[in-house]
Amino acid sequence: MNDIEIRPADRADIAAIVRLLVDDKLGAGRDSLDDLTPYVEAFEQIAADPNQELVVMTRPDPAGGPAAVVGTLQLTIIPGLSQMGRTRALVEAVRIDSGERGGGLGTVLMQWTIERARERGATLVQLTSNGERESAHRFYRRLGFADSHVGFKLSI
Amino acid sequence: MNDIEIRPADRADIAAIVRLLVDDKLGAGRDSLDDLTPYVEAFEQIAADPNQELVVMTRPDPAGGPAAVVGTLQLTIIPGLSQMGRTRALVEAVRIDSGERGGGLGTVLMQWTIERARERGATLVQLTSNGERESAHRFYRRLGFADSHVGFKLSI
Repeated sequence: MNDIEIRPADRADIAAIVRLLVDDKLGAGRDSLDDLTPYVEAFEQIAADPNQELVVMTRPDPAGGPAAVVGTLQLTIIPGLSQMGRTRALVEAVRIDSGERGGGLGTVLMQWTIERARERGATLVQLTSNGERESAHRFYRRLGFADSHVGFKLSI
Repeated sequence: MNDIEIRPADRADIAAIVRLLVDDKLGAGRDSLDDLTPYVEAFEQIAADPNQELVVMTRPDPAGGPAAVVGTLQLTIIPGLSQMGRTRALVEAVRIDSGERGGGLGTVLMQWTIERARERGATLVQLTSNGERESAHRFYRRLGFADSHVGFKLSI
């Protein structure tokens, strides 16, 4: 675990991030590596917003090649009036390489993210997880998250 | 309903928004009108971020006085890579004056917000609602929202 690095994503990571999005039971039908154009456009919007942080977790190649992207997530810092002006951090699009799951990388990535949220002034971290992702729900509960809310979505 | 106005909040609305936050079964213990300083600071952070929109709904005073703030919410525009670079809109801190509930104002405010999210390029609107807010859950379902996700929160 000592050789794992977590850092802001750069443009060169886009394909590797999309690979993680496709490598997912729900994402397989929603994402595609065929054309990266919409992902590059979204990356530019994220990069232009100081309250967005797209993050990758990498593992070095023992043979000296480029490090592999083994995890990703997006953090959004949201100032707000409610709860005495509490700043919240929203976590979206958490993905760990399917071949790396169960080894603790998700915990390392989330703990890093919680610390990063704290550095950015947030005192609440929130996320929603699809009702089908039962193992993810257990994972977030183990990290101390309370499943206190119902997550509503509307496609428009 | 024709005289209702929905517009970006300005500094002069802060106390009225906090009044709506306090006027809530969960907010009563979490917010206070005693000192507006933290709310003013949060307002300045929201105002500095073009991806945040703090909104108020007002009703004119028939006697010609200042319009009353009868509703509020905060919209956050979140670019993202997942789902082919889909932009999402997060809705937080939805409040309608307790004396005005049941009259359709919430529906008007949410419909305005959905249209505003669309104008901002979002194709998904999402929010979480505390598990205790059962009448709110019915309200969001009536608007077409699917309660497909579990909402996790962690105080840090």
